[in-house]
Amino acid sequence: MLENLFAKRINKNIPSRLQGLFPETNFPDNISFGGGCPDEKSFPARELVNAYQEAIINEKEHSFQYHDVKGPERLREFLADRAQKKMGIANVTSEDVMLTAGGQQGIELVAKLFLEAGDKMAVEVPCYVGALAAFDVYEPDYYEIPMEDDGVNLDCLEATLKAHPDIKLFYTVPDFHNPTGITMSLEKRQRLVELANKYNFVILEDTPYRDLRYHGESLPSIKSFDTEGRVIFLSSFSKILSPAYRLGWLVASPEIKAELTKLKLAEDLEVPYIPSATVDNYIAHHDLDAHIEGLKKIYRQKLDKMDQALHAYLPADAKISHPEGGFFFWIELGDDANTSQLLLEEAIPNEHLIYVPSASFYPDRDHVNGLRVNFTGSSLAEIDEGCRRLGRLLNVDSLMQVAI
Amino acid sequence: MLENLFAKRINKNIPSRLQGLFPETNFPDNISFGGGCPDEKSFPARELVNAYQEAIINEKEHSFQYHDVKGPERLREFLADRAQKKMGIANVTSEDVMLTAGGQQGIELVAKLFLEAGDKMAVEVPCYVGALAAFDVYEPDYYEIPMEDDGVNLDCLEATLKAHPDIKLFYTVPDFHNPTGITMSLEKRQRLVELANKYNFVILEDTPYRDLRYHGESLPSIKSFDTEGRVIFLSSFSKILSPAYRLGWLVASPEIKAELTKLKLAEDLEVPYIPSATVDNYIAHHDLDAHIEGLKKIYRQKLDKMDQALHAYLPADAKISHPEGGFFFWIELGDDANTSQLLLEEAIPNEHLIYVPSASFYPDRDHVNGLRVNFTGSSLAEIDEGCRRLGRLLNVDSLMQVAI
Repeated sequence: MLENLFAKRINKNIPSRLQGLFPETNFPDNISFGGGCPDEKSFPARELVNAYQEAIINEKEHSFQYHDVKGPERLREFLADRAQKKMGIANVTSEDVMLTAGGQQGIELVAKLFLEAGDKMAVEVPCYVGALAAFDVYEPDYYEIPMEDDGVNLDCLEATLKAHPDIKLFYTVPDFHNPTGITMSLEKRQRLVELANKYNFVILEDTPYRDLRYHGESLPSIKSFDTEGRVIFLSSFSKILSPAYRLGWLVASPEIKAELTKLKLAEDLEVPYIPSATVDNYIAHHDLDAHIEGLKKIYRQKLDKMDQALHAYLPADAKISHPEGGFFFWIELGDDANTSQLLLEEAIPNEHLIYVPSASFYPDRDHVNGLRVNFTGSSLAEIDEGCRRLGRLLNVDSLMQVAI
Repeated sequence: MLENLFAKRINKNIPSRLQGLFPETNFPDNISFGGGCPDEKSFPARELVNAYQEAIINEKEHSFQYHDVKGPERLREFLADRAQKKMGIANVTSEDVMLTAGGQQGIELVAKLFLEAGDKMAVEVPCYVGALAAFDVYEPDYYEIPMEDDGVNLDCLEATLKAHPDIKLFYTVPDFHNPTGITMSLEKRQRLVELANKYNFVILEDTPYRDLRYHGESLPSIKSFDTEGRVIFLSSFSKILSPAYRLGWLVASPEIKAELTKLKLAEDLEVPYIPSATVDNYIAHHDLDAHIEGLKKIYRQKLDKMDQALHAYLPADAKISHPEGGFFFWIELGDDANTSQLLLEEAIPNEHLIYVPSASFYPDRDHVNGLRVNFTGSSLAEIDEGCRRLGRLLNVDSLMQVAI
């Protein structure tokens, strides 16, 4: 009855992309390749509890008080140093680093800063569903740029920019792309910045998986080639330490960071002390990179196991991606496949298996023959068994299509 | 250089309302009546640390994992029960309760749900600055309804509604209003709901101070009179337990709560487990109302002290509010006073005193002869000394005006 009072964006059913993305199931033998969850056993639980206790001891009652929108100085110094040494970004100081409520808030604030209804932006397709959900609310016109094996197709992006020179924003996950697992080549990183300079747009470089490379060599960030302050580098502690602290961070030019900070103030007032100080204390007393090396050992095994299992169990015509890091494999099936329908009608009820169907990763939900599977959140045995179930599903499905 | 790419809302300098609201000062004898901070000594620190430990012990490694957008069921059951017993709201279940990242996120999500550029909304003036900051981003046309001693002027509101029947949303802090400290009368609460039904708008009832009444009798919430699901009841743990957990909550009709939940998903994905489970465990093992009674004892003394000190030290023509609860006194000076200028040019540099000038609380920042002072965050001695300094400022100011 009150829908007539909602903003237009709501009545277009815009914000529903993340709703019901991970259907609840009660099967005791359920296997979920759905969410992008880290391995729970990898969390340094004891060390994080100690870091919490230190946070409380340091500030005593003040721990439980309001704090400020900037967050711990020492943590921002650490991140500024990391941005320089690990990401190749020159001249970063703690003042250039902004802390956010997870990477998700970073994406949402950038959307709020740049987009209003009808503004043009380009996205990789497929594209991280949470980013689309954040952009959706501000009703941009999306221009879809397809992925290639070495990253987004820049010829296609340039042709699109020529036709639509008022495109303002390009969103990319250059390292172990969500959902395809693809990494953008060095040449493309450089050319992308050149395009941004030439066609006057801003790049949001989202890198939650960047540190999690299991094979091959790391590449400099896109931001490291930025000459005009056009690249916003976004990262997060969610995948390399724990998602529980809702702690993301970004590096942006002073003018952009100043506006994002004002927008954050209006959303949630501050960077809460306890979670940010916990992460800060953890990092002060432990070698984060040594922890990440441990993660990589675990995840490399899982990636290799899923790679092997997918090739062993899936029908020969399934196109399976070759990620060198990150959290996901991407699988493309024949044109007549419908992975949304398959999930609800067969995968969940018959095989007790969850994945994310490709429709979620396209602005118009119009690609239904792909799916994303996560390998970090399951055990090696679950990975094998889940892929066996997926293979059974897809083989039966292939057989039925033949039969029909 | 990149400002040309920002959304129009940004270039109107809209989101700057909270920026620099509390100027940093380094004077060792600084007294701040600025922020709405609880008394730090009132936080049940030991109990909250125990509640944290229980949260970690209960879920072990899973504590550090992603969770969901709903948050703890037991906590939402407690709040549903509280909404019925303490707020007089009938038939509330845990499904009607939504947890938010502080009350601030609740306000921001409601703004996002209802407002787009040019939509009409009514606000009390003066109005909580953080709410204006959240609304500002969505560029509503504000209709300003003045406060009276028993709450907002409803004759004025009705006249405004007659002239502008497309007003969609009305924001109110009915209990110990921020900034004036005024409480809305029972009659006005009832009539406000009748107006909402008659003129088809939604009420956002923001009640962070509701439980903190130091004199007089509590009144039923506006939501308790709601017959058509038009009232969104918003509250928070920030003032009655601790702001550190960034935990607000709201009760809304199913259709409104469903949309707010989708919008929250796109902003920050989830209610984080550790802070929400900490508050949940604290409440399960302690009597929250007994804790609030303790707070009221402390804050009643502080309110009485500030009341006495303001009347003792301020010039006779200063109009001082008479709050029966909450966090703030509101002071109105003569028409030629400029409290924004006074703060920066005299209060901070000469008296080492911070308050919030009235301009912040008006949509157009066009009322400059008032100020808000907080009494909960300072000690009794600081309250006395701060009021003495404020009196000195205002008396000198009065003298100078006479001299001129």
